[in-house]
Amino acid sequence: MGADQFYAMNGGDGYQSYAKNSSFQGGATEAANEIIKEEISKKLDSTSTDIIRIADFGCSTGPNTFHAMQIIVETIKKKIETQFAVFDKMPEFQVFFNDRASNDFNTLFVSLRSERQYYAAGVPGSFHGRLFPKASLHFAYSSCTLNWLSEVPKEVVDPLSPAWNEGKILYYGDKNEVINAYAAQYAKDFNSFLKARAEELVSGGLMALLIGVEPNPTKNVSSISLPSFELLGSCLMDLAKKGLLDIAKVDSFNLPSYFPYLNELKALIERNQDFSIERMEILSNPPKRLTTPDAKSFALFMRALIEGLLQNHFGSEIMDELFKRYEEKVEEFELLLNPNENSMITFVLLKCNRMT
Amino acid sequence: MGADQFYAMNGGDGYQSYAKNSSFQGGATEAANEIIKEEISKKLDSTSTDIIRIADFGCSTGPNTFHAMQIIVETIKKKIETQFAVFDKMPEFQVFFNDRASNDFNTLFVSLRSERQYYAAGVPGSFHGRLFPKASLHFAYSSCTLNWLSEVPKEVVDPLSPAWNEGKILYYGDKNEVINAYAAQYAKDFNSFLKARAEELVSGGLMALLIGVEPNPTKNVSSISLPSFELLGSCLMDLAKKGLLDIAKVDSFNLPSYFPYLNELKALIERNQDFSIERMEILSNPPKRLTTPDAKSFALFMRALIEGLLQNHFGSEIMDELFKRYEEKVEEFELLLNPNENSMITFVLLKCNRMT
Repeated sequence: MGADQFYAMNGGDGYQSYAKNSSFQGGATEAANEIIKEEISKKLDSTSTDIIRIADFGCSTGPNTFHAMQIIVETIKKKIETQFAVFDKMPEFQVFFNDRASNDFNTLFVSLRSERQYYAAGVPGSFHGRLFPKASLHFAYSSCTLNWLSEVPKEVVDPLSPAWNEGKILYYGDKNEVINAYAAQYAKDFNSFLKARAEELVSGGLMALLIGVEPNPTKNVSSISLPSFELLGSCLMDLAKKGLLDIAKVDSFNLPSYFPYLNELKALIERNQDFSIERMEILSNPPKRLTTPDAKSFALFMRALIEGLLQNHFGSEIMDELFKRYEEKVEEFELLLNPNENSMITFVLLKCNRMT
Repeated sequence: MGADQFYAMNGGDGYQSYAKNSSFQGGATEAANEIIKEEISKKLDSTSTDIIRIADFGCSTGPNTFHAMQIIVETIKKKIETQFAVFDKMPEFQVFFNDRASNDFNTLFVSLRSERQYYAAGVPGSFHGRLFPKASLHFAYSSCTLNWLSEVPKEVVDPLSPAWNEGKILYYGDKNEVINAYAAQYAKDFNSFLKARAEELVSGGLMALLIGVEPNPTKNVSSISLPSFELLGSCLMDLAKKGLLDIAKVDSFNLPSYFPYLNELKALIERNQDFSIERMEILSNPPKRLTTPDAKSFALFMRALIEGLLQNHFGSEIMDELFKRYEEKVEEFELLLNPNENSMITFVLLKCNRMT
């Protein structure tokens, strides 16, 4: 599996887990609920089947995925009930929870409520490839996961490349080559995602995506600011200066994450002929300064997201020290008040028009 | 979930895991392969669908389930290829791995081979109830799992009941009331299993079951012998006598397991109108004295099976001591040479005749 196995959010349900530190993502899910309800009522054509199959791509361990799936199932049920007052055969629902094989499915499964309205299944594997049989899904969903790349662009960790991202862990520097490498990887990965889903969805099936985005660029590349990651990068450099980490080790660490510009994302979707954009808008989700209101909770939020990747590269011993320092710096630099600490998430509803 | 969560086989892939101590069950799977191939070739009608869905009920963590699923998928593919030389549209396969929610699905998922010929999903939950939408499976499989009861019959742990199973952990005593309570629970559970599967399988779908059985009774109840469990019960009593366990605690522990007589099993199946028996025969699987040839491996085999249940009742501190003692007694009493140490497994192929 390679690095694949380190992508997963922190497992379990302890105080450092994703399950306990995902209120920011939960806010996005919440904010999308009403739009999803409206769109399903208007656009989902799913009344001629005995079984409705729904999948969440990148579900992690809950609880956000459970809320989202419940809303979707309830809304589809309501639509069918309203449409066919004498409908005597309500379809059954099967919900598939997908994430990397290294995701903590054990925690996900024991957290499933027994009184749910659907049959549940977990599907391990990368959503950049095929995960389901052809035309077997009616509704696909993915929240805050399409900012992950399938891998770090090779050039940015290659000291001989003009895109070498020395001393930084994401594309916040002023090198065009770095951001271009990230953008190219994103385009490739996003296209793979759409291609796979186009095969898996039935014709007319809907897909709701929540994706972290940057506002459209008005200035040049050197203005890119990702303060929460810059701070983390600086903490790694601090530890290197103190001799606790090897400097070359820090140089060779980059995060496989990317936040596309809105226009960029739209263009990527339009490049794929199998989907039409039915709705696209910025969510009014609560910003991080509300969902993680202090340095401690923000550091835990970040830790739950990327500790696996950091551990894989730097070992686990240094993690407590790193995130202690990170928490201090989040406090010291008033990260949560930084206007560039972006919490912007776009909602996109796509309809699959592929004829199978 | 109640006791549900302790049913699972030992997780992980360490030396005490089910994954490393299931060669007996693996032998049964192996022994059934040829029969399954033959029966699929003769009887499976699955050529008019784009997706073939298969489920393993009680899959545990592998590797046995992977071998079984591979054989089934390959055989169905071969059948389709042979039948339709110009068949240009091979169906896709989706395999569902079911076990209790407490099963170690994480280990199962990371053990999945990436070059498999099917899309995989895990389905958490008890197979005594519904787990899949109606008529959504073409082939069901279950190996060495239908000897588990959904719960210990209440009477056998009730000191006021005539069925109180004092000082014993299974129905090896000479009380008719005890074995009757176990048999009644088995009948109820097996019926629930068949009822659920009859709803989930398509009409014409096949189900292959491998079930541990006793030869048909020729003598009276007092002749029932389950030496491996009797030995384990005696180890618990030994620890109680040494003051390491509370005697009342031992009295209140019983295993939720039952090995039906062949005729009994046949009658239970025939009671259900939705299935016809297409084949039923005793497997020539390797006996335990071959798959777990020494006391150490036999003790590990038993530990991987039931440690969860024991831990739940007695706590985890005593487990090492208990299984050390068990290993010694397996050796001392030459358990593996005991002709009553049963390794008899029957293969049953059922066809679902339910009209949906």
